[in-house]
Amino acid sequence: MSDPFTELPAPPYYAVIFSSQRTGQDDAGYGEAAERMVELAAQQPGYLGVESTRGADGFGITVSYWADEASIVAWKRNLEHAATRERGRKHWYGRYELRVAKVERAYGWARGPQDE
Amino acid sequence: MSDPFTELPAPPYYAVIFSSQRTGQDDAGYGEAAERMVELAAQQPGYLGVESTRGADGFGITVSYWADEASIVAWKRNLEHAATRERGRKHWYGRYELRVAKVERAYGWARGPQDE
Repeated sequence: MSDPFTELPAPPYYAVIFSSQRTGQDDAGYGEAAERMVELAAQQPGYLGVESTRGADGFGITVSYWADEASIVAWKRNLEHAATRERGRKHWYGRYELRVAKVERAYGWARGPQDE
Repeated sequence: MSDPFTELPAPPYYAVIFSSQRTGQDDAGYGEAAERMVELAAQQPGYLGVESTRGADGFGITVSYWADEASIVAWKRNLEHAATRERGRKHWYGRYELRVAKVERAYGWARGPQDE
């Protein structure tokens, strides 16, 4: 299993918070497209990283991180991405919400030997 | 099943993006505390809503939404919340990352009869 956490630079940077409910339709097509979108996003200028998870109820949250707003707008206009979004509305999602936010501060914690 | 989406006002508002890896320890204690924290957060001034999900691998993302930064700082200082975070580091989490962000724009989509 690959590490689900992404490593990011110090803020400020931007986050696209994407909440979605899967329909349950076309799991294979969805999985393939989701993987391709992660690969394609990673090639875009300004891309910093992504974290994503989905529960057994089909509700998921994906947060992608970007250097600035211009990178987010350019990614939205990417033709393959736009075509995939169209398939998403047609088949894969019952609902989604997207919020674009500027990350102002961040911190983390990881278990060390002293915590065991 | 309750609706996993939260209804929010028009931006601007703030998001706390919390990514975490569960240890697998103490599922019962964790579940009870998580429920209590959602209930307690909802009583705080400036609280707007929360969306949360966790996959079978134990990696989860919770995004809570707040009217302003002062509300987030006050929630962080809440004594019961602080004590629960301490239990989280001791038992429940292997790692977490927290990012505080200002939501600048938002939009959504939901399937309608014309999409079927």
